[in-house]
Amino acid sequence: MGKKFVYFFGEGQADGSAQMKDLLGGKGANLAEMTRLGIPVPPGFTISTEVCTHYYQSRGQYPEGLQEQVQEALARLEKIMGRRLGDPERPLLVSVRSGAAISMPGMMDTVLNLGLNDTTVEGLAKETGDPRFAYDCYRRFLSMYGDVVLGLKPESEDDLDPFEEIIDALKTSRGVAFDNQLSAEDLKELVQRYKDFIREKIGRDFPQDPTDQLWGAIGAVFGSWDNPRAIAYRELNGIPDEMGTAVNVQSMVFGNMGDDCATGVAFTRNPATGENVLYGEYLVNAQGEDVVAGIRTPQPINKAQATDPDMVSLEEAMPEAYAELERIRKILDRHYRDMQDIEFTIQRGKLWMLQTRSGKRTGFAAFKIAVDMVREGILSEEEALMRVEPNQLNQLLRPIFDMEAKQKAMASGALLSKGLNAGPGAASGRVVFNAVDAEQWAARDEQVILVRLETSPDDIRGMHAAQGILTSRGGMTSHAALVARQMGKVCVVGCGDMEIDYKKRQMSANGRVIREGDWISLDGSTGEVFQGRIPTKPSEVLQVMEGALKAEESPIYQDYQSLMEWADKARRLGVRTNADQPDQAGMALAFGAEGIGLCRTEHMFFEGERINVVRQMILARTKEGRERALAQLLPMQKEDFKGIFRVMNGLPVTIRTLDPPLHEFLPTEDADIRTVADQMGVAEEDVRAKLQALHEANPMLGHRGCRLGVVYPEITAMQARAILEAACEVKKEGTEVRPEIMIPLVGHVAELEDQKRVVDQVAREVMEAHGVEVPYLVGTMIEVPRGALTADKVAREAAFFSFGTNDLTQTVFGISRDDAAKFLHHYLEKKIWQFDPFEKIDQEGVGQLMRMGVEKGRATRADLKVGICGEHGGEPTSVEFCHRIGLDYVSCSPYRVPIARLAAARAAIREKN
Amino acid sequence: MGKKFVYFFGEGQADGSAQMKDLLGGKGANLAEMTRLGIPVPPGFTISTEVCTHYYQSRGQYPEGLQEQVQEALARLEKIMGRRLGDPERPLLVSVRSGAAISMPGMMDTVLNLGLNDTTVEGLAKETGDPRFAYDCYRRFLSMYGDVVLGLKPESEDDLDPFEEIIDALKTSRGVAFDNQLSAEDLKELVQRYKDFIREKIGRDFPQDPTDQLWGAIGAVFGSWDNPRAIAYRELNGIPDEMGTAVNVQSMVFGNMGDDCATGVAFTRNPATGENVLYGEYLVNAQGEDVVAGIRTPQPINKAQATDPDMVSLEEAMPEAYAELERIRKILDRHYRDMQDIEFTIQRGKLWMLQTRSGKRTGFAAFKIAVDMVREGILSEEEALMRVEPNQLNQLLRPIFDMEAKQKAMASGALLSKGLNAGPGAASGRVVFNAVDAEQWAARDEQVILVRLETSPDDIRGMHAAQGILTSRGGMTSHAALVARQMGKVCVVGCGDMEIDYKKRQMSANGRVIREGDWISLDGSTGEVFQGRIPTKPSEVLQVMEGALKAEESPIYQDYQSLMEWADKARRLGVRTNADQPDQAGMALAFGAEGIGLCRTEHMFFEGERINVVRQMILARTKEGRERALAQLLPMQKEDFKGIFRVMNGLPVTIRTLDPPLHEFLPTEDADIRTVADQMGVAEEDVRAKLQALHEANPMLGHRGCRLGVVYPEITAMQARAILEAACEVKKEGTEVRPEIMIPLVGHVAELEDQKRVVDQVAREVMEAHGVEVPYLVGTMIEVPRGALTADKVAREAAFFSFGTNDLTQTVFGISRDDAAKFLHHYLEKKIWQFDPFEKIDQEGVGQLMRMGVEKGRATRADLKVGICGEHGGEPTSVEFCHRIGLDYVSCSPYRVPIARLAAARAAIREKN
Repeated sequence: MGKKFVYFFGEGQADGSAQMKDLLGGKGANLAEMTRLGIPVPPGFTISTEVCTHYYQSRGQYPEGLQEQVQEALARLEKIMGRRLGDPERPLLVSVRSGAAISMPGMMDTVLNLGLNDTTVEGLAKETGDPRFAYDCYRRFLSMYGDVVLGLKPESEDDLDPFEEIIDALKTSRGVAFDNQLSAEDLKELVQRYKDFIREKIGRDFPQDPTDQLWGAIGAVFGSWDNPRAIAYRELNGIPDEMGTAVNVQSMVFGNMGDDCATGVAFTRNPATGENVLYGEYLVNAQGEDVVAGIRTPQPINKAQATDPDMVSLEEAMPEAYAELERIRKILDRHYRDMQDIEFTIQRGKLWMLQTRSGKRTGFAAFKIAVDMVREGILSEEEALMRVEPNQLNQLLRPIFDMEAKQKAMASGALLSKGLNAGPGAASGRVVFNAVDAEQWAARDEQVILVRLETSPDDIRGMHAAQGILTSRGGMTSHAALVARQMGKVCVVGCGDMEIDYKKRQMSANGRVIREGDWISLDGSTGEVFQGRIPTKPSEVLQVMEGALKAEESPIYQDYQSLMEWADKARRLGVRTNADQPDQAGMALAFGAEGIGLCRTEHMFFEGERINVVRQMILARTKEGRERALAQLLPMQKEDFKGIFRVMNGLPVTIRTLDPPLHEFLPTEDADIRTVADQMGVAEEDVRAKLQALHEANPMLGHRGCRLGVVYPEITAMQARAILEAACEVKKEGTEVRPEIMIPLVGHVAELEDQKRVVDQVAREVMEAHGVEVPYLVGTMIEVPRGALTADKVAREAAFFSFGTNDLTQTVFGISRDDAAKFLHHYLEKKIWQFDPFEKIDQEGVGQLMRMGVEKGRATRADLKVGICGEHGGEPTSVEFCHRIGLDYVSCSPYRVPIARLAAARAAIREKN
Repeated sequence: MGKKFVYFFGEGQADGSAQMKDLLGGKGANLAEMTRLGIPVPPGFTISTEVCTHYYQSRGQYPEGLQEQVQEALARLEKIMGRRLGDPERPLLVSVRSGAAISMPGMMDTVLNLGLNDTTVEGLAKETGDPRFAYDCYRRFLSMYGDVVLGLKPESEDDLDPFEEIIDALKTSRGVAFDNQLSAEDLKELVQRYKDFIREKIGRDFPQDPTDQLWGAIGAVFGSWDNPRAIAYRELNGIPDEMGTAVNVQSMVFGNMGDDCATGVAFTRNPATGENVLYGEYLVNAQGEDVVAGIRTPQPINKAQATDPDMVSLEEAMPEAYAELERIRKILDRHYRDMQDIEFTIQRGKLWMLQTRSGKRTGFAAFKIAVDMVREGILSEEEALMRVEPNQLNQLLRPIFDMEAKQKAMASGALLSKGLNAGPGAASGRVVFNAVDAEQWAARDEQVILVRLETSPDDIRGMHAAQGILTSRGGMTSHAALVARQMGKVCVVGCGDMEIDYKKRQMSANGRVIREGDWISLDGSTGEVFQGRIPTKPSEVLQVMEGALKAEESPIYQDYQSLMEWADKARRLGVRTNADQPDQAGMALAFGAEGIGLCRTEHMFFEGERINVVRQMILARTKEGRERALAQLLPMQKEDFKGIFRVMNGLPVTIRTLDPPLHEFLPTEDADIRTVADQMGVAEEDVRAKLQALHEANPMLGHRGCRLGVVYPEITAMQARAILEAACEVKKEGTEVRPEIMIPLVGHVAELEDQKRVVDQVAREVMEAHGVEVPYLVGTMIEVPRGALTADKVAREAAFFSFGTNDLTQTVFGISRDDAAKFLHHYLEKKIWQFDPFEKIDQEGVGQLMRMGVEKGRATRADLKVGICGEHGGEPTSVEFCHRIGLDYVSCSPYRVPIARLAAARAAIREKN
């Protein structure tokens, strides 16, 4: 009889199974699977996706044999149900639903109650003894069929659904407010009006023959595969057109036949917390769509969920059905080895399952379910790792808003603006507009949010003092975003619609003015900015790490630790951190960092009195003058490094020599210039002249990185001396040290050669003077394309590479991250870019150069150590890419270390499978 | 007898030839060659470079057999000369000279008069009857030998040569000023003092045995191959260490035996003008080094050269010897097929040739000699092309200073500063400090030099009005440099030591103050800036092109045309021009451009009233407002394009859509902001707000290029409409048009796709409305690394690529051309870079991406047209690289078109050979 197109399920037997999603769609496959499991599922059959494909390839023709197979399946269904399609006394009613392998909201969904016509409706009325029920079913069928199959949609976007208009008119004439207040006679009238409307619109009568109805619905499902919304959805989500949809024809069960009937949705575990209990809601005497209509409030599925004494849970109302549901929950949860999102209907006390699929959950729940399922013996450790999206860990680590309070704020219109979610977590505080205020307010125990157009290195201490940082400019890798993530601060950047007036000390957004001292709240995970104070919840994991809570008192922490241990077992990629100070380094160690991948020396330049010495160096007119200032800096930098070496206790510490252009260390405001001139004892004009001399058209592409060290080798020499003296001294204290000196912005091997000569010379001198041998490496950042393109040559001098993908992305695209905000959202909206390349590594362009860099570098030096220290190092898709191209480690801000560990593990597992 | 190490030449026979430079060095090979040609050469022999190599490989040992071969050659020499080394009566005297295949100034050069000792000097005195001559020879020998062989150098750089000190002391004690005032007795005394000094220094007597002297000299030559200067020179010039030097031992001839003796140097043609006449100078009764000593002024070699009636030319003084020299000149010139630089000595009326080699010459001479030699049947056309360095053509095209006047200015200390030679040629003018003044002064027929810190698009008309442009900032591809080259203006940029005070209308450099209206002169070929007015000479070729001179009256022009015709026959690479206006396009056509490779539309935006309309567009708050302003611009741009299409008459015209960031069109000075606000009828604050909104941290990497068109498609649409309407209208006039619309700064194919859609839509509309079909192409610039890295994808949408190597160099290196000046000279001095990558294509980095772009692009689209329109398109080594990687054309500023044509031809010829 040729190829099989129709797959039957019913009475504990099914032609299909959960494995056959491609052929039967997700819904059909799971209906078959549940049937096989002996779970009560209304019987029916699935027409395969191959029919859809054939339908399109042959321009609307069905494959040979389909008609017969459907007829046969229908006959089997009729036999099981003891009913017949169109039978005037015991009519079979069916639902028709689409169902592709991947759920597609753009497609036709459901036609219920198919099989009703002017004759069978009377049979149903008689059989149930409930004419109102029968006509209610009929009118629902007519409107669904009219909409979905006959295409009777609203004429424009402003219009109501035409069937809604008709029922509204009837309700008005009858003086009632709700559908369920209409009588059986009213519904009869409504059915007539619907049929009249349909005839008027399509020029012929509504099809009374149930077989015609069925084929009409099947055709509509297949037709919906190519409606514009569905096409657009597939395009956006990269779903191939050839995939096709299946059609599920299933006998009807009714949740709306009386008070012993109900319909509901549930999760096999709590999708918010992950707790292993049934979680859901239901409505008595209702069909699924009634929940949406909003007439009645759904009730909690069990007593545990009831928050109000008036609520009647299913557990109480229908204890037997509830017990059955609980039994089935466990079967499904264990069988599918994942939390299920289920739909059910109770008809006259009997539970029927209509749908099961993997449920969406919060990050926290994903984490908890995965860990629990390992404990329950359901999942292997590696499987559990694959169930938690790395970014979901943020919910374990960061303070979060109380969800209810946030929703209330949202409902009350407190949303001020939305920017980029640069530093996850939630924070509330009083607005201050400069870093000094932030420090001072914080010193008197005020919670503050620092609001700036954009931040600069001058603002670092203020940022540290603030609960959160908000800027109107900048992107995901702007100064504010970078520093905030490194500090673990909540941060929203690039709120372009927010106007800040420093002079008036106020900002305005969404028509409202916020003054200094007013409370605002930032959701750094979504980029939302709210007026007012929204309460936050602290992260338990962090409390344990900071010693405020004992590990044994925190199951969450224990679960977190377990997951991290499994991740460390699975991963090949090392995980380091970007940290400039001992406290950051310590936090990163607690998060599991295995070394420092980037220690920026310039942040140290801003601390306390140092900035004055740095400025003396810059303002010096001679090499000798610079060397005098550098000599003052030396002991300060040395102490920094000693602190870090002690904390890291033998783990590798990669220290980058001075990178930013010198003008970043000079003031720009008139008053500051005067102050600095006074402090330095030089003329104000000299400071201005230096500023002018150092001015750059494009600082990002200017005199910075190793270009500074090439022109001023005395700076490199001082830094090398500080690092190596610190290393020698700490080693003498008995602590191992592994400094890795990293020369930034190398584009030509000769630059590295030049700087390495300086470092090696200093190293020889220092180690000889100390009588200590310290193993140190000299390597480079690969952060301009030329570095990667000539990596074979650069590797002749470099013991290691570290990809600086922030700058590499800027130069590969020719786009300044500080200026990208102007067109970034256009690019994302127009889908010119699929994602922000400053957030995720652009594997096609930037990644191509990285791959080239690794290959060329290792061709010259097989044991070349290669890492990444750009912000991408903590972004999961980027970490996976780094794994694939064979990097040795990623380095990221301390708070992203656990995320990177998990992402690295998943990459390794994915590669293995 | 084993391997041959010694090559004899003499009496018309020689073991070696000109082909054996590697083995015999340049000097030895040419001595052999001249001998074979029957030219009188003092006989001698050459010890091959293989001996040098052996000497180093075996740590100072000579190969077996060398001693015997030298002895044998010496015996043969003695026989020919009828003299013997060390013979007390007829002593053989020889010179010993080094001579590598490539001339190396860092090496030991020459020892003359070897063979003299206390005995033979007396023999020489007796034989010549001139004891003074004999002792003069001896003392010269002693000092040369002492210096070169015995290493008796000055003790420090501040000291005099020790032999100089001794002779100076003697002269002082004798009360004479010049060496030639010393008597024979004095010289005898001097010889004694030299010998005493030598014994004192080396602890033994000066070697009296001539054979010891000879081997000492041979060893010194080989030893000099590895002196530090020689090593450094080889390193800098990439000469392999293994090459080695040869040693030439040659019997002495004397130009200082009396008034029938002379010594001189000459060129077989005039090395300044290329004229086919003997050119040189000589001294009667002198040895070569006397010319250097500066005691006597050398005399002109012939009457034609004598500029002073007192001068006595060789032609007059020794007509026979001169005739012989003239005969030999012709033989050498024709035999070597190149202008020769020759050295000769006349001993007692007989001419002896000591050296011949290819002579250095001016660009002009190179050109003239090459063309003449084709006419004379000496060279083929292709050989002639290989004889002219493309940049040498500049001397044909640009006005140049009168050399003598310039030297006088230099000598009088008029040099103010030296910057980068951004626009070749010479110009004098009165200083003005802004573009408006430049225009006004020029309008009253003043010659002006526009002096600015740096230039901006606002200055374009002023630049046009000026004779030359001078800036204190910026590099070879700064705005000033780019525009100047395109306009063919003389330009010096980046004079960092020049201070400009706009307010006082003055500048200072080299301790002098130059005020507005003062004369200065610029040498744009060297970067020199002079105080005062140095007369210039106009270029004849340009006079012909501009119609001021008839082609048939200008042999130079005819020669130029011939060379260009030969180049066009030889080259494969097309040559287009970068031109924004019809007059530039016309000039480029006259220079031989085959199309426009880059027409920048934004320069048109500054003309006349347009800038106001452009500013209206930028200040518009809505798309409608922008479209209104654009509608005003449309007819203006259309007229521009029509003008260009008419001039180009069917040749392809590549037009780039708007590229620079919008803030470039807004004023920055307070006064200008007010004016603009008034003109636009908007509040000053609005202009400032817009300026702030458009402000960019790194404009080079900001909202520009296609990113403008993506966000404001209406701009692209207007430009496309202007281009295509112009094309349709010009085509209706009967002129063919081939517009090529170029989308700048594409890094992702989706950007091009987006913009192409806009262009194609407009094109359909316009062509339908006009009822005309115009063949047009849409392509892109490849100027960010990502464009090249994903060229396979970009080529799906692009009909052509044009490499924008200015921006590509900036992004590949991560270096802003505007800011590079701060470290560029350090990089060049430290040899981190071998050359400025903004001047020549960095083949290793930028070139690697270009090659990738070509390969990937053509893999997708085999017929992809690929060109280059960066400034490198007119730089010879870059043009050759473009040829090698298979580009279809280069495009450069009009004045570089001939240079590119020649460079392209040379690349093709080099590839063939």
